[in-house]
Amino acid sequence: MRKNRVLSHVGYRVGVDLMGNENSPEALLAILRVTKLPVGVELVAFGLPEFEKNAGISYVAVKEFISPEDHPLISLRQKRESSLSVGLRQLKAKKLDAFVSAGNTGALVSGAKMILGNLPGILRPALLARMPTKKQPVVVLDVGAVVQVRATHLIQFALLGTAYCKIQGIEKPTVGLLNIGSEPLKGTSELREAYQFLKNMKNPPFHFAGNIEGKSVFDGNVDVLIADGFTGNIFLKTAEGIASLILDRFGTILPRTEFQKIHPQIEDLQRNLHYAEYPGALLVGVQGTVIKCHGYSTPQGFANAVLGAAELALRDFSQQLKIQMDKSVRFRSD
Amino acid sequence: MRKNRVLSHVGYRVGVDLMGNENSPEALLAILRVTKLPVGVELVAFGLPEFEKNAGISYVAVKEFISPEDHPLISLRQKRESSLSVGLRQLKAKKLDAFVSAGNTGALVSGAKMILGNLPGILRPALLARMPTKKQPVVVLDVGAVVQVRATHLIQFALLGTAYCKIQGIEKPTVGLLNIGSEPLKGTSELREAYQFLKNMKNPPFHFAGNIEGKSVFDGNVDVLIADGFTGNIFLKTAEGIASLILDRFGTILPRTEFQKIHPQIEDLQRNLHYAEYPGALLVGVQGTVIKCHGYSTPQGFANAVLGAAELALRDFSQQLKIQMDKSVRFRSD
Repeated sequence: MRKNRVLSHVGYRVGVDLMGNENSPEALLAILRVTKLPVGVELVAFGLPEFEKNAGISYVAVKEFISPEDHPLISLRQKRESSLSVGLRQLKAKKLDAFVSAGNTGALVSGAKMILGNLPGILRPALLARMPTKKQPVVVLDVGAVVQVRATHLIQFALLGTAYCKIQGIEKPTVGLLNIGSEPLKGTSELREAYQFLKNMKNPPFHFAGNIEGKSVFDGNVDVLIADGFTGNIFLKTAEGIASLILDRFGTILPRTEFQKIHPQIEDLQRNLHYAEYPGALLVGVQGTVIKCHGYSTPQGFANAVLGAAELALRDFSQQLKIQMDKSVRFRSD
Repeated sequence: MRKNRVLSHVGYRVGVDLMGNENSPEALLAILRVTKLPVGVELVAFGLPEFEKNAGISYVAVKEFISPEDHPLISLRQKRESSLSVGLRQLKAKKLDAFVSAGNTGALVSGAKMILGNLPGILRPALLARMPTKKQPVVVLDVGAVVQVRATHLIQFALLGTAYCKIQGIEKPTVGLLNIGSEPLKGTSELREAYQFLKNMKNPPFHFAGNIEGKSVFDGNVDVLIADGFTGNIFLKTAEGIASLILDRFGTILPRTEFQKIHPQIEDLQRNLHYAEYPGALLVGVQGTVIKCHGYSTPQGFANAVLGAAELALRDFSQQLKIQMDKSVRFRSD
């Protein structure tokens, strides 16, 4: 499985961008040092020189970093030695097997496209997140990479989401479009065009379930939910916000002793709905494994994302996604 | 307050469209007959002739109705004698003081614009819904009237939402834009343009809170949340879906006896988050009081919307909104 390996060691390496998020690099290093990684995986942190001394893990000192307020494209051009850019270049050079960042989303997505390149046939990579439902989790994409989409992008998201599910062992995933009603004419012109294309596709690698409303997603009848990056992001964060509201209300209506008894389960559910605590969002459609954590991830959430990245690295996820996408293209042109 | 009254009776009349939703007209009539209305308010149902005999309330028999699958503009032109069109014409003629429909959203919005006319200066009316937060409820608009917006529409939604809040007694409401991050450059080009306009407006009738993420809305720090109709609708329905998921999970993790003990409070919370049970969405920006219920409203939800309409009629809401909007325009041109 492992080809073109330029490193001398035999293990897998996950790069971690310490910079440009709401946590201090020290806080992130503190939790990363005690995070139990799968056998064969090691971490490489990317950050400013002043944090190297007490890092306690492999460290690449960089000159600068991209902040959340920076303009994505300008900062990529002007800060070529940022933790984000250096990390992505090491991923490209196969010195890393995966890269995790909680930095500037736009810079990470654009940087990954420019440095790693897209998968063949993919115009815009997407951020993919998993959300709980009443049944199995649903894969949602895009949750923030492409804010204004064309129908072609939505169609490619459907293929990327399908490929992801196939790697997870779902033979023929069910795909739906996040929309404001189930009728084919509902929603934006891009959604209507994508609907017609997906519905009429010959031998699709997925079952097409049509339009899905936000209230039905959580019934768990689709494996993949397609949205533009703006809507997908609103969807994700609304779920997080409402979960927090409800659990807050429960704290007031449940007797205190009862609330404490079920507290672990409540926290578990909240974590599930709080994607900052979840393995982060996976950037699919580029040639490499890149995970984006939200800037407000807790250190524990960040560490969970790093563990998620380690799992993906161990399974050669990026190569597997490429194989699945190739199959899906071949399948369609048969 | 009551001008141009053409009816001989002194009370207020709320028109109710029985057609074009998932409930049978009989089921709606059954609940409307037993709904306790405020003193001085009576209902007028609009439906096909076959439901008139056992109606038990004032009834206007119409020839046809617009179904949810009909094309909004074509059906308005071709079905001029539909319950929706006849009801709106009676509202225009001041034979009604408010009109409630759970029918085709596009037809109701377009029909209201054509028949009632927009308020001066308003290009596109918006659907307004109220959502619970950790503090006071937030008013969200648009939740489905304008699927693809320009910045001007978003700005007008801010003024309409502000006027609504002022009528509710909030002197200077706080207004935010639903967005995927708090930075001014986040989101679509329309949002960025609206952001700059609202931020730089002289003597605005509101406090501008900038961009608000879905996860922060429920903290309750804004009174008015602005979104295009697509995003606002996704927001509303996602909240509904996730509430149902969480309460479902609670049913499994709470001991049965405890769950039953707090069941009324849970149902109350769920009703709050389920806008089908809520007073419906209010169409603001037209010359008249129109309430839209979702097609999947339960009969009880529908009756609640009718009660909400009765309250608005009693308070001459439509006239008050016009006064507030006039003030806001004068205020700005001072």
